[in-house]
Amino acid sequence: MNMLNINWKPDNKSSTPLYRQIADYIKEKIGNGEWTVGSKLPVQRDLSKIFGVNRSTVIEALDELKADGLIEGRGKKGTVIINNTWSLMASLPSQNWEHYIKSGIQQPNLHTIQIINKLEYRDNIIRLGTGELSPELFPKEMMKKIFANISNKINSLGYERPKGSLYLRKILSQYVKKFHINTSPSSILIVSGSLQALQLISMSILKPGSTVLVEKPSYIKSLHVFESSGINLRGISMDKDGIRLNEILRNLDNRTSLLYTIPTFHNPTGTVMSQHKRDNLLNLCMQERLPVIEDDAYRELWLDETPPDALKSKDRNGIVLYMGTLSKSLAAGLRIGWIIGPESVIERLGDVKMQTDYGASSLSQYMAAEWIESGLYEIYLESLRKNLKSRRRAALKTLEKHFSDIASWNIPAGGFYIWLKLKSKINMEKLFYSCCKNGILINPGYIYDFNTNYNIRISYSYASMYDLQFGLKKLSKIIKDL
Amino acid sequence: MNMLNINWKPDNKSSTPLYRQIADYIKEKIGNGEWTVGSKLPVQRDLSKIFGVNRSTVIEALDELKADGLIEGRGKKGTVIINNTWSLMASLPSQNWEHYIKSGIQQPNLHTIQIINKLEYRDNIIRLGTGELSPELFPKEMMKKIFANISNKINSLGYERPKGSLYLRKILSQYVKKFHINTSPSSILIVSGSLQALQLISMSILKPGSTVLVEKPSYIKSLHVFESSGINLRGISMDKDGIRLNEILRNLDNRTSLLYTIPTFHNPTGTVMSQHKRDNLLNLCMQERLPVIEDDAYRELWLDETPPDALKSKDRNGIVLYMGTLSKSLAAGLRIGWIIGPESVIERLGDVKMQTDYGASSLSQYMAAEWIESGLYEIYLESLRKNLKSRRRAALKTLEKHFSDIASWNIPAGGFYIWLKLKSKINMEKLFYSCCKNGILINPGYIYDFNTNYNIRISYSYASMYDLQFGLKKLSKIIKDL
Ligand SMILES: Cc1ncc(COP(=O)(O)O)c(C=O)c1O
Ligand SMILES: Cc1ncc(COP(=O)(O)O)c(C=O)c1O
Repeated sequence: MNMLNINWKPDNKSSTPLYRQIADYIKEKIGNGEWTVGSKLPVQRDLSKIFGVNRSTVIEALDELKADGLIEGRGKKGTVIINNTWSLMASLPSQNWEHYIKSGIQQPNLHTIQIINKLEYRDNIIRLGTGELSPELFPKEMMKKIFANISNKINSLGYERPKGSLYLRKILSQYVKKFHINTSPSSILIVSGSLQALQLISMSILKPGSTVLVEKPSYIKSLHVFESSGINLRGISMDKDGIRLNEILRNLDNRTSLLYTIPTFHNPTGTVMSQHKRDNLLNLCMQERLPVIEDDAYRELWLDETPPDALKSKDRNGIVLYMGTLSKSLAAGLRIGWIIGPESVIERLGDVKMQTDYGASSLSQYMAAEWIESGLYEIYLESLRKNLKSRRRAALKTLEKHFSDIASWNIPAGGFYIWLKLKSKINMEKLFYSCCKNGILINPGYIYDFNTNYNIRISYSYASMYDLQFGLKKLSKIIKDL
Repeated sequence: MNMLNINWKPDNKSSTPLYRQIADYIKEKIGNGEWTVGSKLPVQRDLSKIFGVNRSTVIEALDELKADGLIEGRGKKGTVIINNTWSLMASLPSQNWEHYIKSGIQQPNLHTIQIINKLEYRDNIIRLGTGELSPELFPKEMMKKIFANISNKINSLGYERPKGSLYLRKILSQYVKKFHINTSPSSILIVSGSLQALQLISMSILKPGSTVLVEKPSYIKSLHVFESSGINLRGISMDKDGIRLNEILRNLDNRTSLLYTIPTFHNPTGTVMSQHKRDNLLNLCMQERLPVIEDDAYRELWLDETPPDALKSKDRNGIVLYMGTLSKSLAAGLRIGWIIGPESVIERLGDVKMQTDYGASSLSQYMAAEWIESGLYEIYLESLRKNLKSRRRAALKTLEKHFSDIASWNIPAGGFYIWLKLKSKINMEKLFYSCCKNGILINPGYIYDFNTNYNIRISYSYASMYDLQFGLKKLSKIIKDL
């Protein structure tokens, strides 16, 4: 059942009594069809907090609505909307969407992720897990230059070609040369972020019932992008230099269709696959005809030295689908990413993209092109690395101070994440909720894993330096209390 | 099998022989893994055109590639890539993606649509069918102002909330009041164009095997957005004032899950549903508990008088999912649309959107908000209507001159489309290809219909006035010749 959101308060200064304002507000929501039959109101205690009134005022308002036949109390199950003003008048049945919402091939997000997605926008919450750059790090002044430049270049903003703006694809085919990837614009597809690339792949080139191998743990496990198309994920464990090759071999069968890997600054563990393992992995995949999705979202975020070249750079066989994005290194809100692969695959994905959303925002594509082409992106990246380095330092220092006795962790060479492993086996869901209550948002490791684990993904990219340190300290206390 | 695209020519001035340059070019494409095994080269005649060389030069290059074991001629089936340089050297099997490309739940676009999507970006083609505003009509100077404004407002460009920017949703909830729709920001979901709204609906709230009723013909029939999720479309015929209500009743069964309708300036027929029929339709749907998707993409493009209010404006039951977009009235490349509906449905769609692409471009959302909030959108719309009016006049005049004996048509009261009905039963696919050859791109009616028809969707929004008149005249000749 669906819990309703309320962002409204009655007016203390109005002459209309508070209970009346509340009853009218709820009636209007129901009358508008915004709140439909079967929707659930928060419990009285929460309602009195939300509205900022006494519980007795809430009860008075609800009693009126009950008398009108609009809602019904169902004991511990709370208060449910059972009818609507309009249909009462017209004595017509009212629409119940509940069974629609439960239909549809796409699974809902993990409950923990749904909560994260919501709480992220609350005030006064410290986001210790967010995999995104802090607004503080956004190059605002540079962006003004970019705006000025593109505002003279844009003559119209129409639909783009199936594969995306040719101008941007040309720039990208030059840009990836930096990583020794040779490709031409016709083998590049612009996507609305690399998450969409995964969505397109799952809908376009994979058979329901097939299996995709992924690292264990993996970012991809926190989504249902493959599972919702009827594709199964199988986890392959990792060691210090990346995914275990013989475990890949052991897990191959005739349903295996792909390997999805994040070789560089892996999410959530921070692992970097060694050059040696990259070579061996590519050979293995060619021998076994196992295509690879290489998710390279964090490549530009190296902090100590440039990482080994992408798998794609040595792919002469068209076996690798390479994914890049501007989300982690510049601005997630641009929603600009790219896939590079064999032209036939790119054409298929582009055709499906045209059926899904007619392509990424042209405005974002112009802006992405201008960032790279102007050279400002390179300049900005250098200062970004410096900033991330001091954030990493601060996070590690705080961890040493407050976590040495309760956890162990890696020292990431790039990306955003520290993969904190707790020493004692506490209830991780309980920890998550307890943190939420204390104004701290964490990404618990279980959303990324196939089995239970006792990890937390800490990100040093998002919270302010102060919040990072303060929040980590508080987190250590919450853990110790549990 | 996949046909490769080539946008390259050998260099006439180089000292390297032309055939050698061509062979090297193809080897590089194969060696890079961009052209994979199983891909098909264009026929020799086309290759010689594409490369701008004699056919004998093409043959020489192909012979060399054959001798290297890279390609194979298959008689009438053309030339196919059978191996790649790298795998030859390493004697490893090479990746064949053909069966991947044929897998995946998403169906390919209709072949005619694929051709349209490609040819649209050719030079020297007159686009008589394109459902988009001409670049000429883009308010470039106003956009500069918008750019200047938002460049001072944007502090960072991060991921947005699950339902989209709250700022934009607030503005939209005010904006739709203009159409007498009452809603609050929490009942609005921002989407990357309304096509994506349809995609989300099909994946999130509909059961595979269920049926969606749609007008016959309908825009939606030119896509596979519902069918790819296993949902069937059933066509309901229309009369002058919209979809036939008793035919809806006759077609209801326990699999029917939704009605999709474009009541205002219908695509492709231009029809406007009368107020009377709107009232009756809404009653029918409430009685039958048949939810409605109201696609209102063209509402702002009235030319003679404002159209009747949206169905949504009288929906007290939460039975209507209302879709709007900036694509048709301002800029398709922004990729900004919205769905308004019961909060529980909006929450579900937002949750799935977060799994699909993490939300629409924040940059586009800022820009959309600024257009509406600044009032510039309203001002621009007034001049746009004037422009579209003279385009409509020009199109109708040309039709009268050249088509009176061969076709009949409607006079659209708004939107972009004239639905031309040919008097004689010619082969419409042949007509389409024949137009392509003559540099004219049309949208043949069969892509929108359930049965064969003899219609063409003419759009007066895209081609320049001159091209529109010239193209229509040429089209009439081509039809007469067939
Ligand atoms: C490994 C990885 N890939 C892809 C994404 C999605 O990025 P985008 O914003 O490009 O969709 C993320 C974001 O967390 C990520 O960590
Ligand atoms: C009726 C209708 N709905 C939706 C769309 C898609 O528009 P958008 O660009 O908002 O995805 C179109 C575009 O042709 C249309 O004609």
